[in-house]
Amino acid sequence: MRVAVVGAGVSGLTATKCCLDEGLEPTCFEQSQDIEGLWRYTEHIEAGRPSLYLSVISNSSKEMSAFSDFPFPEDFPVFLPNAQFLDYLQRYAEHFSLREHIKLGTTVVSIRKHADFATTGQWNVVTEAGGKQTSHVFDAVMVCSGNFSEPSLPLHCFPGIERFRGQYFHSRQYKHPDIFQGKRKAANSSPEPLTLLFQVTISTTRGSWLLSHVFEHGYPWDMVLNTRLMSLIKTNLPRPLPWWLLNYKLNQRFNHENYGLQPEKRYFLVPVLNDDLPSYILTGRITIKPGVKEFKDNSVVFHNCTEEEPIDVVVFCTGYNVSFPFLEESVVMVENKHASLYKYVFPTHLQKPTLAVLGLIKPLGGIMPVAEMQARWVSRVFKGRGANVSPPVSQNAVWVNEKVWVNLEYYGGLASVLKTEWLVYLDTLASFIGAKPSVLGLLCTDPRLALTIFFGPCSPYQYRLGGPGRWEGARQAILTQWDRVLKPTRTRVPAASSSSFPSLLTVVGFLLLLAAVIFAFQ
Amino acid sequence: MRVAVVGAGVSGLTATKCCLDEGLEPTCFEQSQDIEGLWRYTEHIEAGRPSLYLSVISNSSKEMSAFSDFPFPEDFPVFLPNAQFLDYLQRYAEHFSLREHIKLGTTVVSIRKHADFATTGQWNVVTEAGGKQTSHVFDAVMVCSGNFSEPSLPLHCFPGIERFRGQYFHSRQYKHPDIFQGKRKAANSSPEPLTLLFQVTISTTRGSWLLSHVFEHGYPWDMVLNTRLMSLIKTNLPRPLPWWLLNYKLNQRFNHENYGLQPEKRYFLVPVLNDDLPSYILTGRITIKPGVKEFKDNSVVFHNCTEEEPIDVVVFCTGYNVSFPFLEESVVMVENKHASLYKYVFPTHLQKPTLAVLGLIKPLGGIMPVAEMQARWVSRVFKGRGANVSPPVSQNAVWVNEKVWVNLEYYGGLASVLKTEWLVYLDTLASFIGAKPSVLGLLCTDPRLALTIFFGPCSPYQYRLGGPGRWEGARQAILTQWDRVLKPTRTRVPAASSSSFPSLLTVVGFLLLLAAVIFAFQ
Repeated sequence: MRVAVVGAGVSGLTATKCCLDEGLEPTCFEQSQDIEGLWRYTEHIEAGRPSLYLSVISNSSKEMSAFSDFPFPEDFPVFLPNAQFLDYLQRYAEHFSLREHIKLGTTVVSIRKHADFATTGQWNVVTEAGGKQTSHVFDAVMVCSGNFSEPSLPLHCFPGIERFRGQYFHSRQYKHPDIFQGKRKAANSSPEPLTLLFQVTISTTRGSWLLSHVFEHGYPWDMVLNTRLMSLIKTNLPRPLPWWLLNYKLNQRFNHENYGLQPEKRYFLVPVLNDDLPSYILTGRITIKPGVKEFKDNSVVFHNCTEEEPIDVVVFCTGYNVSFPFLEESVVMVENKHASLYKYVFPTHLQKPTLAVLGLIKPLGGIMPVAEMQARWVSRVFKGRGANVSPPVSQNAVWVNEKVWVNLEYYGGLASVLKTEWLVYLDTLASFIGAKPSVLGLLCTDPRLALTIFFGPCSPYQYRLGGPGRWEGARQAILTQWDRVLKPTRTRVPAASSSSFPSLLTVVGFLLLLAAVIFAFQ
Repeated sequence: MRVAVVGAGVSGLTATKCCLDEGLEPTCFEQSQDIEGLWRYTEHIEAGRPSLYLSVISNSSKEMSAFSDFPFPEDFPVFLPNAQFLDYLQRYAEHFSLREHIKLGTTVVSIRKHADFATTGQWNVVTEAGGKQTSHVFDAVMVCSGNFSEPSLPLHCFPGIERFRGQYFHSRQYKHPDIFQGKRKAANSSPEPLTLLFQVTISTTRGSWLLSHVFEHGYPWDMVLNTRLMSLIKTNLPRPLPWWLLNYKLNQRFNHENYGLQPEKRYFLVPVLNDDLPSYILTGRITIKPGVKEFKDNSVVFHNCTEEEPIDVVVFCTGYNVSFPFLEESVVMVENKHASLYKYVFPTHLQKPTLAVLGLIKPLGGIMPVAEMQARWVSRVFKGRGANVSPPVSQNAVWVNEKVWVNLEYYGGLASVLKTEWLVYLDTLASFIGAKPSVLGLLCTDPRLALTIFFGPCSPYQYRLGGPGRWEGARQAILTQWDRVLKPTRTRVPAASSSSFPSLLTVVGFLLLLAAVIFAFQ
């Protein structure tokens, strides 16, 4: 069974690997000259490719963003600069011999239903390499082209921009801070730390909750927040309560109202990751302003502000549009900027589940384990293994009722994001393929592992303990996850000291054993 | 009465101002071409002058580091970049007409006891300007020459440094991060945020407690920690307890052990201010290492580490020596690198208290209010006003018993720093001149002010409520201190929101009223 994989980024690499695991024949088409899409920094911006700034750092920790059978090396930093992320992806490609299945410098021009689609589910795929087009027939397609290539720059929302005499551009074009030397800058919700000597103004209409990489007691935020215990609390308490609790926590770090960041609607904003902003605001290097009311020749007027702000450069951090130029619109149906995809993956109205879109969600957690889990599920569906793995093609009514609207504007609607609770989504797909770990079952056979799984971070190795794609090293990887986190930072140990964390974990673990048993029953 | 003030930095400016307040005739000698010593950034390093890096930010908040009768403008940032600090000092000099008393470009060459010193307490002062020396006779001298001019670079403590082929220099010579482009760097307890793309290693023997500008709930650290309530707790609990509590707090931000920063001796290290380090360690941009064991040709070996670390550049952040080249050694007696100064100000063995050293302490709090309080006390002593203002010259025995050892190595011994609890020291000097506020007295006449003074930050305006140098605006300045803090950061207010801080303050205030009454009695 031949599968076309579009793109060799994070999703494309794991898609190729998962196809191989299931005995499918993947061919991965990558338009640029090397793998790793998003994470490869280039000095110049390439059309149709994502563009990084030089100092970008991963949002999720190495233990929470690893592929589930391939932990990061223990000496890698806890959060990864792009160069080390690249290194990891290259190791992944080598280790699973993925390169021989990847065609570099090959653009996918079009994907159309084959004449026999209704019976075979096949696709006609046209690719172009070196100016020459080739036609292929594939049994299935995984779209892994990402969603950071087409910038969204809604200039019509900014009155007066046409007469603004300063420089302005989309954040995609931002590479180095050098360009701002000696200039004032207005950024629209810029996520990057700016440590320079010019005055930065961030304009935000909605405000934002800010989360730090360094969470309570210095542990990585996602290893504290993305646990099964937390997820149980979050999904079982009445709706506003868990968000209110999280917001309370976030306000303990700094009062968002006093810093001008308080979101308009208290309960429905997903936190943004930024370590430096509070300190930069307090030291006057960054000022927060409301939304832009109007541009003038050399200044900007913000809502509810009487004075104009002199501005030299404007960076529009207005996000990205999701687009699939190689697909017919009828394949991924777009209504009012929303696409109808079952579990964010399968277009709901195709007669055959032979096309899937990967990595098109933005949960509050590492995207790599999510893309991998999607790929594991999709490759099982393509293969047709097990009744529980397929999307409900034969029961179209159920499908449509269950469908989830995916917002195609990256920074757009919030309801969809709320529904993609990271751990719940992973568990759902894992249960489709029988890879969801059973805490209750393990409590009898391997209580230490069960407690670590329940109270500790939901690291992706949990989904390799059993089921198809079971990995021998999973248990060990889970039990040593904190070692790999502490290794790169505990680089100086004073005499006669010992870590207090494992003992604390043990104590808390046993104290909450009762709660575990009660909760785990559901 | 003529007073010579050596240096027109923070201490020199306020010394000149306090002399004028007491009706003395100050002449301030400044060797460089403008006022403001430490805070004036220059691209090139000048001998005998402090040297800033470009991105330096004040350690204490604007409300806690203001001169007591001259609050910072409300739109200034909460923590100040050097340019705005300079601006403030210039406004201070203008407002109190200090410039006419300052002789710029004039170096103090020597200060010697006058022949009649035993009876008159006078000093012969020789200055040099434009290559020409001038002799003066002064009735008193205030030494305000600072302690950031003479770098301490103890190379003999670093075996093998002579064969190290990379670049090395004292932190004083650090100006821009540009010089490190493409290099690895080892810094010795570097305090500056380094946001660049090279690998930084910080070598620290003793470790360090880290404090952030942004303290709990985002309030400035010194406005939370330096309150009368906190000070009472700190000075009344048994010794290790308050430090243990503070350390517990600091470990809540991040576990110092896991980050390689845990100090060797748990109870006796003063925290260092740094906002970025935890995040930089977690993202792998900075690695903490133990003390340097040995330098090799192109690498460094650290204690307890088997591997050598390849290093291109070494920045020695080994602090400064305090020196008074213009004074005879017998004036400020140095024994084993300690000077004997009554309350850190008056040399203990002079027959006449007509020479004082200002700003030679490093308490955990703003230095400007301290230097100002010293100047207020000293100028009253010079003037000879009130029995309680003078150091005990006539009771030499008492004096010697009370003397405090000032450590002349800036980053050296810790005992001396512990003894200079910021608020206690300010209160002590204030009681000498009758400017210490009475919380208990105010509780009857002005309870709102009393509560703010007791529970709120000990802002310097408290020392202008009464006594000599009373300032009409003090009460108002105290009651509006939080407004000036919130003004530059609450720059975007979402619809239908209100600050929760004042109400919280009120609630806490009244809840703790009882405690206040009990505590205040002592």
